Amino acid sequence: MGGTLYGVGIGPGDPELMTLKAARIIGAAPVIAFFCKAGRPGHARQIADGHLNPAAELLRLEYPFTTELSLEDPRYLAEIGLFYDAAAIQVGERLIAGQDVAVICEGDPFFYGSFMYLFDRLRQAHKTEVIPGITGMGGCWTRAHAPITHGDDVLTVLPGTLSAEAMAARLAGADAAVIMKVGRNLPKIRAALATAGLAERAIYVERGTMAEERIMALSEMTEAVAPYFALVLVPGRQRAR
Amino acid sequence: MGGTLYGVGIGPGDPELMTLKAARIIGAAPVIAFFCKAGRPGHARQIADGHLNPAAELLRLEYPFTTELSLEDPRYLAEIGLFYDAAAIQVGERLIAGQDVAVICEGDPFFYGSFMYLFDRLRQAHKTEVIPGITGMGGCWTRAHAPITHGDDVLTVLPGTLSAEAMAARLAGADAAVIMKVGRNLPKIRAALATAGLAERAIYVERGTMAEERIMALSEMTEAVAPYFALVLVPGRQRAR
Ligand SMILES: C[S@@+](CC[C@H](N)C(=O)[O-])C[C@H]1O[C@@H](n2cnc3c(N)ncnc32)[C@H](O)[C@@H]1O
Ligand SMILES: C[S@@+](CC[C@H](N)C(=O)[O-])C[C@H]1O[C@@H](n2cnc3c(N)ncnc32)[C@H](O)[C@@H]1O
Repeated sequence: MGGTLYGVGIGPGDPELMTLKAARIIGAAPVIAFFCKAGRPGHARQIADGHLNPAAELLRLEYPFTTELSLEDPRYLAEIGLFYDAAAIQVGERLIAGQDVAVICEGDPFFYGSFMYLFDRLRQAHKTEVIPGITGMGGCWTRAHAPITHGDDVLTVLPGTLSAEAMAARLAGADAAVIMKVGRNLPKIRAALATAGLAERAIYVERGTMAEERIMALSEMTEAVAPYFALVLVPGRQRAR
Repeated sequence: MGGTLYGVGIGPGDPELMTLKAARIIGAAPVIAFFCKAGRPGHARQIADGHLNPAAELLRLEYPFTTELSLEDPRYLAEIGLFYDAAAIQVGERLIAGQDVAVICEGDPFFYGSFMYLFDRLRQAHKTEVIPGITGMGGCWTRAHAPITHGDDVLTVLPGTLSAEAMAARLAGADAAVIMKVGRNLPKIRAALATAGLAERAIYVERGTMAEERIMALSEMTEAVAPYFALVLVPGRQRAR
């Protein structure tokens, strides 16, 4: 009787990079929910706009913070759990009323996504289905024309929020790497790549697959800070075969 | 004047998990090429079947081997380069004649895909465009209901073709991991996970998102050998937030 909770990956930015299944589900769901910042349209919502059921209720799940806080910041830890609790209640009310709710998610819902915290809270009591999405990194290595892993390459994906030492240690011996969450972590990321001897191979991609996309060698990116939608790619060994 | 080479990711198995862009391109391309084994229908072709331009030429690129060879096997190294050279010539002839060629690829073309070797050979002389696809691992963690990375987890992706020692070393200290190319490497993978203390958390997924999908704790998978389309997931830290 209850509605189904859908976590719908809508891909990295280009709306044509959503799956047929994602388009079908968001075209029919009576409620479309999305995480966003107060006063902002919501990034996932902008990507999905042309494909949303026009009659759907749009349910904004507004983060309590207006700036990016560190994952260890005590203000973050105190508030974020309460925020997800409240969001789960809002979504859960619709599910109990028998409505399907599609939570639209940038990239893939289970890959560093906020949706996971809703999923953890609602999966016991409700039917849930997740639709994978093209990840931001997949969109970026495609647009950079940079095959990421060949043969028996190992790929390491790490967030730029790690310390420079932890990052350098993880990068040492990686064949291929992706560093997510660049933003203000850019100087630290540069240092870690230099320590690991990977700075030369690194490619910087900002807003991959979106209209304002920028792609360049990391060494040519001279700004001190990057936007939120930016990552660094270190392609694996290009073996001639 | 020349045609465009498209590398089209068609996703992990469920045809509905291809992108809108992939469906548009393979629905219109005059030539659809795919890698396959002699005498077999071709896995990518089976996934894409309902979406292919019915008037397209189907160009089979048949691997010279009928069994999986090790990447270090001298027979493999001697023949594989010649095979890709010949495939690039066949595709290149159509491009020169002004036809677009869509090479359909399981998962994502730039993620451990054979397409990369065609791309390397043809990119200088021809217009190329790549369409990312949902990776096998993305399809598998979705179907296993296993969020793979939270917060500042590091994800390590490695092929089961590595030695048990190399695998265990890479897994040590990984928060989340994906082990690709399971097949006959399964006993070695089990040993490496045990050494790294990760065996308990490991999930086995066979043919994720396909009709014959199987998902279970790795500890419950008692067979000695797995099929080609199988991988092992180690989800990251499930942090309560
Ligand atoms: C919280 S994570 C969410 C990842 C998302 N669930 C996915 O599957 O890609 C956000 C980070 O993903 C990366 N990202 C996502 N989409 C991107 C894009 N289109 N271009 C560049 N980076 C992107 C950025 O590093 C950003 O800081
Ligand atoms: C040569 S790699 C190609 C990967 C592909 N390009 C991708 O993006 O997933 C083949 C390996 O991918 C994994 N794989 C791909 N699709 C899968 C699926 N649907 N279920 C389980 N494993 C899969 C298996 O480990 C297989 O041995």
